[in-house]
Amino acid sequence: MKLESLHRLLHLVATGKTSVDDAARDLQHISFENINFAQIDHNRSLRKGFPEVIFGQGKTAEQIISIIEKILKQEDIVLVTRVNRDKANKIKSHFPDIEYHEDARMIVFKKNEIPMQGKGNILILSAGTSDIPVAKEAYLTAENMGNQVEAVFDVGVAGIHRLFNYKKKIDEASVLIVVAGMEGALPSVVAGMVSQPVIAVPTSVGYGVSLGGLTALFAMLNSCSSNVAVVNIDNGFGAGYFASSINRVGS
Amino acid sequence: MKLESLHRLLHLVATGKTSVDDAARDLQHISFENINFAQIDHNRSLRKGFPEVIFGQGKTAEQIISIIEKILKQEDIVLVTRVNRDKANKIKSHFPDIEYHEDARMIVFKKNEIPMQGKGNILILSAGTSDIPVAKEAYLTAENMGNQVEAVFDVGVAGIHRLFNYKKKIDEASVLIVVAGMEGALPSVVAGMVSQPVIAVPTSVGYGVSLGGLTALFAMLNSCSSNVAVVNIDNGFGAGYFASSINRVGS
Amino acid sequence: MKLESLHRLLHLVATGKTSVDDAARDLQHISFENINFAQIDHNRSLRKGFPEVIFGQGKTAEQIISIIEKILKQEDIVLVTRVNRDKANKIKSHFPDIEYHEDARMIVFKKNEIPMQGKGNILILSAGTSDIPVAKEAYLTAENMGNQVEAVFDVGVAGIHRLFNYKKKIDEASVLIVVAGMEGALPSVVAGMVSQPVIAVPTSVGYGVSLGGLTALFAMLNSCSSNVAVVNIDNGFGAGYFASSINRVGS
Amino acid sequence: MKLESLHRLLHLVATGKTSVDDAARDLQHISFENINFAQIDHNRSLRKGFPEVIFGQGKTAEQIISIIEKILKQEDIVLVTRVNRDKANKIKSHFPDIEYHEDARMIVFKKNEIPMQGKGNILILSAGTSDIPVAKEAYLTAENMGNQVEAVFDVGVAGIHRLFNYKKKIDEASVLIVVAGMEGALPSVVAGMVSQPVIAVPTSVGYGVSLGGLTALFAMLNSCSSNVAVVNIDNGFGAGYFASSINRVGS
Amino acid sequence: MKLESLHRLLHLVATGKTSVDDAARDLQHISFENINFAQIDHNRSLRKGFPEVIFGQGKTAEQIISIIEKILKQEDIVLVTRVNRDKANKIKSHFPDIEYHEDARMIVFKKNEIPMQGKGNILILSAGTSDIPVAKEAYLTAENMGNQVEAVFDVGVAGIHRLFNYKKKIDEASVLIVVAGMEGALPSVVAGMVSQPVIAVPTSVGYGVSLGGLTALFAMLNSCSSNVAVVNIDNGFGAGYFASSINRVGS
Amino acid sequence: MKLESLHRLLHLVATGKTSVDDAARDLQHISFENINFAQIDHNRSLRKGFPEVIFGQGKTAEQIISIIEKILKQEDIVLVTRVNRDKANKIKSHFPDIEYHEDARMIVFKKNEIPMQGKGNILILSAGTSDIPVAKEAYLTAENMGNQVEAVFDVGVAGIHRLFNYKKKIDEASVLIVVAGMEGALPSVVAGMVSQPVIAVPTSVGYGVSLGGLTALFAMLNSCSSNVAVVNIDNGFGAGYFASSINRVGS
Amino acid sequence: MKLESLHRLLHLVATGKTSVDDAARDLQHISFENINFAQIDHNRSLRKGFPEVIFGQGKTAEQIISIIEKILKQEDIVLVTRVNRDKANKIKSHFPDIEYHEDARMIVFKKNEIPMQGKGNILILSAGTSDIPVAKEAYLTAENMGNQVEAVFDVGVAGIHRLFNYKKKIDEASVLIVVAGMEGALPSVVAGMVSQPVIAVPTSVGYGVSLGGLTALFAMLNSCSSNVAVVNIDNGFGAGYFASSINRVGS
Amino acid sequence: MKLESLHRLLHLVATGKTSVDDAARDLQHISFENINFAQIDHNRSLRKGFPEVIFGQGKTAEQIISIIEKILKQEDIVLVTRVNRDKANKIKSHFPDIEYHEDARMIVFKKNEIPMQGKGNILILSAGTSDIPVAKEAYLTAENMGNQVEAVFDVGVAGIHRLFNYKKKIDEASVLIVVAGMEGALPSVVAGMVSQPVIAVPTSVGYGVSLGGLTALFAMLNSCSSNVAVVNIDNGFGAGYFASSINRVGS
Repeated sequence: MKLESLHRLLHLVATGKTSVDDAARDLQHISFENINFAQIDHNRSLRKGFPEVIFGQGKTAEQIISIIEKILKQEDIVLVTRVNRDKANKIKSHFPDIEYHEDARMIVFKKNEIPMQGKGNILILSAGTSDIPVAKEAYLTAENMGNQVEAVFDVGVAGIHRLFNYKKKIDEASVLIVVAGMEGALPSVVAGMVSQPVIAVPTSVGYGVSLGGLTALFAMLNSCSSNVAVVNIDNGFGAGYFASSINRVGS
Repeated sequence: MKLESLHRLLHLVATGKTSVDDAARDLQHISFENINFAQIDHNRSLRKGFPEVIFGQGKTAEQIISIIEKILKQEDIVLVTRVNRDKANKIKSHFPDIEYHEDARMIVFKKNEIPMQGKGNILILSAGTSDIPVAKEAYLTAENMGNQVEAVFDVGVAGIHRLFNYKKKIDEASVLIVVAGMEGALPSVVAGMVSQPVIAVPTSVGYGVSLGGLTALFAMLNSCSSNVAVVNIDNGFGAGYFASSINRVGS
Repeated sequence: MKLESLHRLLHLVATGKTSVDDAARDLQHISFENINFAQIDHNRSLRKGFPEVIFGQGKTAEQIISIIEKILKQEDIVLVTRVNRDKANKIKSHFPDIEYHEDARMIVFKKNEIPMQGKGNILILSAGTSDIPVAKEAYLTAENMGNQVEAVFDVGVAGIHRLFNYKKKIDEASVLIVVAGMEGALPSVVAGMVSQPVIAVPTSVGYGVSLGGLTALFAMLNSCSSNVAVVNIDNGFGAGYFASSINRVGS
Repeated sequence: MKLESLHRLLHLVATGKTSVDDAARDLQHISFENINFAQIDHNRSLRKGFPEVIFGQGKTAEQIISIIEKILKQEDIVLVTRVNRDKANKIKSHFPDIEYHEDARMIVFKKNEIPMQGKGNILILSAGTSDIPVAKEAYLTAENMGNQVEAVFDVGVAGIHRLFNYKKKIDEASVLIVVAGMEGALPSVVAGMVSQPVIAVPTSVGYGVSLGGLTALFAMLNSCSSNVAVVNIDNGFGAGYFASSINRVGS
Repeated sequence: MKLESLHRLLHLVATGKTSVDDAARDLQHISFENINFAQIDHNRSLRKGFPEVIFGQGKTAEQIISIIEKILKQEDIVLVTRVNRDKANKIKSHFPDIEYHEDARMIVFKKNEIPMQGKGNILILSAGTSDIPVAKEAYLTAENMGNQVEAVFDVGVAGIHRLFNYKKKIDEASVLIVVAGMEGALPSVVAGMVSQPVIAVPTSVGYGVSLGGLTALFAMLNSCSSNVAVVNIDNGFGAGYFASSINRVGS
Repeated sequence: MKLESLHRLLHLVATGKTSVDDAARDLQHISFENINFAQIDHNRSLRKGFPEVIFGQGKTAEQIISIIEKILKQEDIVLVTRVNRDKANKIKSHFPDIEYHEDARMIVFKKNEIPMQGKGNILILSAGTSDIPVAKEAYLTAENMGNQVEAVFDVGVAGIHRLFNYKKKIDEASVLIVVAGMEGALPSVVAGMVSQPVIAVPTSVGYGVSLGGLTALFAMLNSCSSNVAVVNIDNGFGAGYFASSINRVGS
Repeated sequence: MKLESLHRLLHLVATGKTSVDDAARDLQHISFENINFAQIDHNRSLRKGFPEVIFGQGKTAEQIISIIEKILKQEDIVLVTRVNRDKANKIKSHFPDIEYHEDARMIVFKKNEIPMQGKGNILILSAGTSDIPVAKEAYLTAENMGNQVEAVFDVGVAGIHRLFNYKKKIDEASVLIVVAGMEGALPSVVAGMVSQPVIAVPTSVGYGVSLGGLTALFAMLNSCSSNVAVVNIDNGFGAGYFASSINRVGS
Repeated sequence: MKLESLHRLLHLVATGKTSVDDAARDLQHISFENINFAQIDHNRSLRKGFPEVIFGQGKTAEQIISIIEKILKQEDIVLVTRVNRDKANKIKSHFPDIEYHEDARMIVFKKNEIPMQGKGNILILSAGTSDIPVAKEAYLTAENMGNQVEAVFDVGVAGIHRLFNYKKKIDEASVLIVVAGMEGALPSVVAGMVSQPVIAVPTSVGYGVSLGGLTALFAMLNSCSSNVAVVNIDNGFGAGYFASSINRVGS
């Protein structure tokens, strides 16, 4: 339930325009709603400023459809992450208006445009072309949570002059998300150049001792630059969400 | 070199109060200073808003003393992390005015009080009593970077009512640092309650499959709450620094 | 061989209603039966109170069918775990009366209803919707071993008020099974609330440093709550079996 | 606070023998008590049937003394685990009446004898002589939580006839704790013989690929016997606690 | 080249029945033969008593066919391990007389029956039915290297009376191969009963922390029984080969 | 951009044969070229003596085609690594003149023959037949960077006389690349025989505790011979590239 | 109890020279003897041909002394492994006649010389000088179990001509024990030269990715030579014991 | 034995100035010398251009002294690595002329100055001050093998302008050694700037998920720059040796 809906409803009750009984019925799901295979957390948007996001992996298309239905009754937007094309097609046949972003494996379903809520720009950098899907997931998440977002891809350290070319964009951002696989060196270099918070996202791009992204993850956690924190491997969603939470601090 | 010192110097040159030659000599170390075993990064405070912090582990007391001397010529404050009591005593015999915090293994040496620069409060929570040293390192770092900081220790999930008792403090903070060892569950629970960014710090507290903190680290990276990012095991310093960088976003 | 059958047979011998020779022939398989690719442990139900359960993974449908045939000659129930749909179909074409539970990948084949033997209720909680298959395997196992079982799904710590809503059910259970993937925090929180034994089941739900369930497993083994013991990743069967053994203690 | 004390106090209030004000003062710490470096969970004995047990590792002797003082004001018994001789001596010089068990690294401090509360016997088996310290920690924990406990040491599988000699004791126990290092095979063999719950405790005894107990732990989690659950490496305390919780089921 | 062929050829030269030139041409490949993608080690049967065995994994059917052709010119038998059905079919269409054992994924191609060369019996035990493919690979290897071999499957420790039933066979063997997955406890128990060498073979049977066989491997390496040595996970071939080398010691 | 092209262009400007404006337009991409999903590093051949090599894994055929087009405008050769047959076919339908080497999974596209630039011979040795694909990737890379290259396959330590047969080739090489899976012993043996640099390439050939090549990698890093350095698992490309860089030292 | 003592005693009973009662008292400990902290397996020398060997690690000097006392009442020899100098001194002050081998950390205590029982020679090779302590443990074990043993140290693959120099000794041995740390390549090379069984012993010699011996262990398990089996890291005792069991096959 | 000594001796024989018997006695140790605990490889300097280097770890001071004595009879220089101060003192009391470098834990003992043999400069860069000991080991090794060596310390990526300041030195080197701990990013950045071979040396500097240097090692093996090869963690010696072998290619 959005905060403004709650205010509006309570105002109607206060002014007698809605009966207590009617309001009670509306509010009964404000905590959460039990649909047997899920306990939908309708309280989340009140508590956290954004409705529950559905983790698509390990859920059936049917389960996802049911959860979307319940959330959309109370919210203006719903995101689903980690959805492959097959599941997305089944969901789209039920909700034709969803946007499905195949590279980011993400569904966005919104009733209205999202108002800008963050204070500054979020800049997303990727080390390589192969890291783009994870960077896109971060992009879509941050954008749909109401932030100004920009992205530059393929500026890894093998040709570091490419990075320095974007120095101005980097300086102007309020938060940076840096996505890299293999040796995961880019976040350290970027964080060494700036004072803003840098969110490092390791990807599973690589082979051999890239260990499915563990090496990039561990490298980022050992960054010799101090303004770096890290999210799980390939977790573009978490990076976008965390950047958005930073971008609202003090607002 | 502090930004205001740079401005003052350039102003003196512009108004003819300092000769170009004198200014050049002062500025020659603005990039960095080579003292053979270290290239001191005097540019860091211009670039990042805080002077280089010395990583004490693996350096001799003599090396640390030399680096402190060079930094203090240009800065008002210097921090040294991961210093054991023996090294600290040697350093203190050279600089009697340093504060040494044994539990946090940290040296703080400042010429003046640090002005408040962050916009909100940083709240530090620890799961157990044994996690306090790491939490203290975060506390000292954030405080000395000019932030309002508060801490509550020993509110782990084995008795979760203790945590809920501090709900008000939690809601009022602008950024949260949550420190935990063992199963590392506390950051997920805290982040599930709020919309602010939560910085999770795994500690090496535990035994057996705590694996020196790896389990807490991995648990935090897998948090089912999305407003969580993570730093290295026992890295209280990094958490405090990162929190400070968030607390200045938009300022 | 069921205990009551053994008693009945010996009674018939004692009263002269069965000849020693006939009884000897019946009893010859009481230890185990060699069918070349398996040594079926018919003694198990005497020794452990429940017949051998077939671990379906790595066995062919033909092997499973042969083993079921042998067990059913002496027992009233047989369970087969980790059976995919293809194998299940082959087995069903031979034994049309089996129940196959696809989500739990489990076959239940029973001649009669199972009498209640446990003393209290077993309550199963899952952290997420994606953990349901493992929770179901625990459910079916415990139920078919003669216990009162109940389950609540999707009460993970990202919205902890959902868990507290089921406080009464939790307090009334004699044993709890808590199933969770990702950071595996739920068993610690639940065990911190109660005095009963809590069996923690890590699942392979997650990605990146969930490490196929290792992170949840290690987190649960490090629980700061003391009334927790753990079974293998995705081992719903073991959790159900262990809960049943607890539920009969003292009976 | 013990449950009976709570009842008695409320009865005194109900009968007017204690004023509301006096009772309120007594009850104010019933939730928890903040002594800055710890939030002592006085509610624990109401909730879990046994007061908070102090995890000694990583705490100073001074911190442990303060916590003991606070707990003993409300409880009849306090246990401290993982205390080395040095710390124990400092604590003993403050509380001369504590018992310190050096092999189990455990402090027991009790005002009265513990009444028997469990229903059956708990039997502890260790595979080797070197596993005895962990087995002793389990013994002391279970015994001081009010259970009948017995132990047999050094019955590992290298000479399996030694185990079978204790078959009668094994059959008569209500719960078994089986402690083993190295290959950790003993719990599987024991659990294969009985129907009761078997709590497996891996120890760090061994070298090379015993990996500090990880191998024994993983072996136990993979037990081909189903009535087995596992606790952390060297966690004798947890095994004793869990066994005690089982031994009270239904009581 | 077989040792007897070498002797025969040299005898023919010594007696003038073969010219030096003809013999030289025959002997030129006695060291090895370069067929570009392989250097076939024809010296191996002289040096090791058995011709080169082809490791089928990672080789194409065409490569395997070429190598078989070269070996068979000089030897009476060739084995190929780790061949799936597809490759086996291609090879069989070229050499219709090969035997392909699908469960053991092994090709045996021999011109004559293998004479018995080992001195005693090799006994193979498997813990479960799912371990049979690995046990079969050991069986075929040892048998085709000229040994008397016997096997008993599914005598794991969950029902240890099944194992004791085969005590006589176990005592009479000269070497034992014990195959087990999951917790890998069987070799310790068997080796504790006898004085002969026990070769332990871990298998990848299991799930979760069986870690693809690593747990069984590590458990076996930590055996508390001392007459145990271990081969790689699922390496039935190596176990059979090693048992055969033991069975010829002193002959 | 090739170094000679740059010189020629500047010469034309210096002699007035090209206008400054025309030259500027040509040179504008000399740093790098932004095609949105990639920042093509045209400066690389000036800086490193060889144009950017495309890492094919994780890129779509369409992305690879676009990048090839841009590189070929400025260079005479382009290599693409880790391309499977499907992608290669799509690319070949666009650029019919590419050579695709399926075993090495590599595309070579060159306008002219590559002039020899290295000073000595590079010799590639593989331990087994299954290691050939990785050895071939090294071969093609070194050859197309302008080196004399030779290869000998299948000279692993199980029949070490095969290796010694090639002693002369080994002695004459200026640099050696040694490719091995399983226990990865060959580089140590080879490096023990010679004074030249030996580049060790671990492969993922093996099973069980070969751990996908980690064991061979670690063994090579622990070589008791000192003239050994190592590249990532299966990284034939890196080995060829590194050998080429050695072969030009001093030229 | 030694086999011959058992025979002698039974003979005395059969001939009436010992009363049944006296014999019974002597035989009562033939199974095992319970001394509370240990169940001494006196049956072991009957069952396995050698009395129980004491694993010294994790036992106190007092415990070891008690166990030695009990064993020596029935046996002619006792070995204790993994005893450091301090413990050894305490034991020696109680049993002045023990031999303590500090490099091998082993105690040998024998009443008489050990008669030769093995059929051939056991040859021990070590790769380096630092591996000697482990090789010595193997040497002492095999020798004291009644075998002809010889050793050559420091013949690792960095200078492989040293190994070939001992070709004759190698060919004449009936069993080989090959001890190596670092990359663990020596067993593969040795096993490639001979047909006898090779027991590989990895040591913890090395640093970095030697991983405390794991790399050598894994390399040995992946040996491309097939007549190799492996024991735990630094387990010289197990290698000597296993070699001895091979050396008696058929005797 | 040095190559020139061998030539000189053979020349003396050829010209009759030395008798065959005398020469034979001198040459008898040319292959290797057995001093029981070591087989000293005197052939190494002929084969590899530099005498055997003694790996000090795990050897006693007495063993090292004996080996030095033997080597110095035939060579002009001997190096000992990984020697702590205690051992060094014992060795120095025997050979007062050795140089001991405590930071590099290395002994250098030479009769004459080493002639320059490499063709270009070797440049060593370290990321931090704490990495200097490893860098020094590389420095001493390369220098004493006859190379021009230079070093710059503390130019890690947290302040990357420090690195660029040394661009000219970097461009002029023939080989680069780059030493880094923590995230190990420096080799990638350096290798991206140049065409020469870059030898990456991971160090164990760091904490938490630096994993004793594994993270830096893996990061370097995953370098997105291709002219990088890697040696073991903290293996400065190997890096210096390998650089030296490169620096002589073609000479």
